[in-house]
Amino acid sequence: MLTDIEIAKSVKLRPINEVAAELGIHEDQVENYGRYIAKITTDKIDTNKFKNHHLILVTAISPTKAGNGKTTVSVGLALGMQKIGKKAVVALREPSLGPCFGMKGGAAGGGYAQVLPMDKINLHFTGDFHAITEANNMIAALLDNYRFQHEAEGFKLKKILWRRVMDVNDRGLRRIITGIGDKNGIETEAGFDITPASEIMAIMCFATSVDDLRRRIDNILLGITEDDKPFTVKDMGVGGSIVALLLDALKPNLVQTTEGTPAFVHCGPFANIAHGCNSVMATAAALEYGDYAITEAGFGADLGAEKFYNIKCRKTGLQPDLTVLVVTLQALKMHGGVAQEDIKKPNVAGMEAGYWNLDKHVKNLQSFGQTVVIAFNKFATDTDEEIEVLRKHCEEMGCGFAVNSAFAEGGKGAMELAELVVKTIDEHPSAPLYFTYDDDEPVEKKIEDVAFNLYGAGSVTLSDSAKSMIEEIKKLGAEKFPICIAKTQYSFSTDAKAYGPTEGFELHVRDITVNMGAEMIVVIAGPIMRMPGLPKSPQAERIDVVNGEITGLS
Amino acid sequence: MLTDIEIAKSVKLRPINEVAAELGIHEDQVENYGRYIAKITTDKIDTNKFKNHHLILVTAISPTKAGNGKTTVSVGLALGMQKIGKKAVVALREPSLGPCFGMKGGAAGGGYAQVLPMDKINLHFTGDFHAITEANNMIAALLDNYRFQHEAEGFKLKKILWRRVMDVNDRGLRRIITGIGDKNGIETEAGFDITPASEIMAIMCFATSVDDLRRRIDNILLGITEDDKPFTVKDMGVGGSIVALLLDALKPNLVQTTEGTPAFVHCGPFANIAHGCNSVMATAAALEYGDYAITEAGFGADLGAEKFYNIKCRKTGLQPDLTVLVVTLQALKMHGGVAQEDIKKPNVAGMEAGYWNLDKHVKNLQSFGQTVVIAFNKFATDTDEEIEVLRKHCEEMGCGFAVNSAFAEGGKGAMELAELVVKTIDEHPSAPLYFTYDDDEPVEKKIEDVAFNLYGAGSVTLSDSAKSMIEEIKKLGAEKFPICIAKTQYSFSTDAKAYGPTEGFELHVRDITVNMGAEMIVVIAGPIMRMPGLPKSPQAERIDVVNGEITGLS
Repeated sequence: MLTDIEIAKSVKLRPINEVAAELGIHEDQVENYGRYIAKITTDKIDTNKFKNHHLILVTAISPTKAGNGKTTVSVGLALGMQKIGKKAVVALREPSLGPCFGMKGGAAGGGYAQVLPMDKINLHFTGDFHAITEANNMIAALLDNYRFQHEAEGFKLKKILWRRVMDVNDRGLRRIITGIGDKNGIETEAGFDITPASEIMAIMCFATSVDDLRRRIDNILLGITEDDKPFTVKDMGVGGSIVALLLDALKPNLVQTTEGTPAFVHCGPFANIAHGCNSVMATAAALEYGDYAITEAGFGADLGAEKFYNIKCRKTGLQPDLTVLVVTLQALKMHGGVAQEDIKKPNVAGMEAGYWNLDKHVKNLQSFGQTVVIAFNKFATDTDEEIEVLRKHCEEMGCGFAVNSAFAEGGKGAMELAELVVKTIDEHPSAPLYFTYDDDEPVEKKIEDVAFNLYGAGSVTLSDSAKSMIEEIKKLGAEKFPICIAKTQYSFSTDAKAYGPTEGFELHVRDITVNMGAEMIVVIAGPIMRMPGLPKSPQAERIDVVNGEITGLS
Repeated sequence: MLTDIEIAKSVKLRPINEVAAELGIHEDQVENYGRYIAKITTDKIDTNKFKNHHLILVTAISPTKAGNGKTTVSVGLALGMQKIGKKAVVALREPSLGPCFGMKGGAAGGGYAQVLPMDKINLHFTGDFHAITEANNMIAALLDNYRFQHEAEGFKLKKILWRRVMDVNDRGLRRIITGIGDKNGIETEAGFDITPASEIMAIMCFATSVDDLRRRIDNILLGITEDDKPFTVKDMGVGGSIVALLLDALKPNLVQTTEGTPAFVHCGPFANIAHGCNSVMATAAALEYGDYAITEAGFGADLGAEKFYNIKCRKTGLQPDLTVLVVTLQALKMHGGVAQEDIKKPNVAGMEAGYWNLDKHVKNLQSFGQTVVIAFNKFATDTDEEIEVLRKHCEEMGCGFAVNSAFAEGGKGAMELAELVVKTIDEHPSAPLYFTYDDDEPVEKKIEDVAFNLYGAGSVTLSDSAKSMIEEIKKLGAEKFPICIAKTQYSFSTDAKAYGPTEGFELHVRDITVNMGAEMIVVIAGPIMRMPGLPKSPQAERIDVVNGEITGLS
């Protein structure tokens, strides 16, 4: 089979203006970035009252290092929908250059179920990530400058809460000392996160208008002064300039799939260290223009889906009709204790040993009131016997089951899934969302609700800095915000190596930060890093340009 | 008078495809970034054999903090050319977000002589700076990761020569310690420069094709190993991936002026800390499509123009027909010792006291064999008496003199200048370039040639690290590269406060770095910083978004 980028290059793309026109988007709303990418102006997208169309969430069981192919299934489902005569629009996150040049690779789907042009989408795309990086770091520079220039007047922060970001996997920047030497400002312990973990990224995902963006930027909490007052972007008087940097980035990006169907790809927080969903703007646009809006939330359902419901849907009122849970045999076998080198080999018992992971995710999703359909993401090495055993197991749980072969076959390989999704929405749509915790619970209780009821933790412990931050949050009146737990994607626990069932573990909260602009409380659980590192042999060694064409992107 | 951005918004822009078509650029070569910005594919731009059209360099006397308006004059000259029936194309640098949010403001011209859309150009534009930042920092992360991952095998650098960059004025990042704490790599003293000082920026300016870009990226010297060997990007095997990040950024950007004439705006190294000229691609494109190509080199002629001739023209074979020297009364008065608060007041004697600066620049430019024309950049406060006294002085030096009022009047305010430029090129074109030093001189001698003959220094001294770097450069066989002196723009000396004549000063070389990819030797003279800081009240406080429109950019 051809590589992802070979397939991508083989597709004859439609002019994006044609794709936009077909959706009913007026040409005045379309801002081209080359022939095949456009930004859509936000004035016609209603984020207050979503179109009464069908919203479908695609999530997955706990992933392998290569992921379960959620994006491939999301795109595949849209292609399958088109094949059965339905108008579906997919809304996805933008990829980060960190994993693209690091280990996991890009994030534009795979095989014959991709969003295109994949090289542009995986690299700089329309510059949204760079605008977010710039805005984040401009605030950092303005803050350090403010501290430096107003020090003589007695201005001092006892706690600095703003970090810099970069869209690169650079472990050396996690903890740094800045301002060393003469004339270089105030010596400070500081650090960088990866751009998908920036509060600005989250703000861009939640902002429903330019005014709402301004309000959120102004509200960002940068630090606490010596006399115990919050110090915000508004206090520096630079909110307008930061919004100026983000004005274009707020507009959702329209691209197309391998079969010419429309796709909105906009903003990209990771789901392990951030909330893991594309922008509200993009979801609203998909609902506005598609009868079926298909969106995706990152990593396993313990991360992306939990945050999709408890944060994104809570904030916006979005109500998914259905949740699609992506399952792969390789992940099941990994969770069943099969050695990494053997997970591609037929092994019914090994697969069955991993059911606990699937079952727990299904139970969790159902706890939100969601109807769950299983999308089996088929790989070439999977056997019919394994698939049939798994189908039976899923049907016994009361979940619809369909094989998705969109990676190898495009839309025609996802028709079974599309039919199942449409039928299930007609016959058994989800109940109104039931959230895991209430707004007015204390922060500790919210963490416990998620940890006990969804992760299966036995206890929750908090570091001193986490405890003191909770006190700060109370003073700020921010207890009502939802929580965004940062933890490993490889386990329900906080131990990335704990592949097996992990009931009763201790969830240790290492730190807490409050995003006063994004309006959520970030809970850092276990040793998870908000800035990844690179492996010994990074993907960068395999990306190349040959005769002017990019190769090796996946 | 309206502000720059008010004027910019009042202009009805032509679709950029129309501007491109008028230049004779085929629609297949045009990649739109919105309606009014395009990238032009590089395949039709010949950088080996430049079109035999007229090349004009615009430079200036030593500037005030606000600059002398070189970009305004460059654009104005192009507008004036159009008014007198000539086909002129201007080639300029892209602005940096550092000064835009810091002190100096943007860099897209001013008044009725701007390149448009000025808000996009001053902010993210087509993302070239962000691509360069990303490529630079991806190399830094890959390098630190290589050191970390190969440490156990005995790999060690005794000298690390690669720094990170950011397009923000952030003094706190000049000197930092990275890799603090467990699992965060190797603790290292490091630092950030501003993006316009990145070697990648210089490489993008000099690269004549994708293959040439690859060769230069591979050649970048990252450090010296313990056993005294150069360690390059090629040694890490990631050159192709870095080129992939830069592929779109290599294409020159086409925009339009306030009067709809074409402008290439591409790459933007500062002239005080880098070589100060737009890309060879953009200059070649301007020569390809215009009968007159007008380009600009940053800050005073001691910086940008010197580097334009000695570096850019030397490398490429470009031969300017004429150099336009921009003069303002405010700068002359400043150089004449008039107090900052009084430089806008009529003062013939104060102006005359500043002639030394003008005269020295003229003499320097003539030393390259250049015919010099003086463009008097008129401000509202300038008096006719002052202008006439100055005109006489310039004509006595044998230089043509014309008043440029393009800021206030657009093209019709630059017709006198345009006529003078055309006539001078016809009657007295410049001689072939005479360089200040030869390729095969030792590095010390090259520095002395520029310092003694152009700056008027009395002595050149070198720090120990500069001396040891010269030894390294000899070993690398890089002595033949031209030198790029980083020093203050406010004085011929290295003392930013020495406004008056400075003959006989000591030029102290604090450090030297070698750009094996850009193929030049960067000589850091005096206390100049390659990462600026922000002032107490930065421009960021005055930039805003009102009713969806950006305000306060200048």
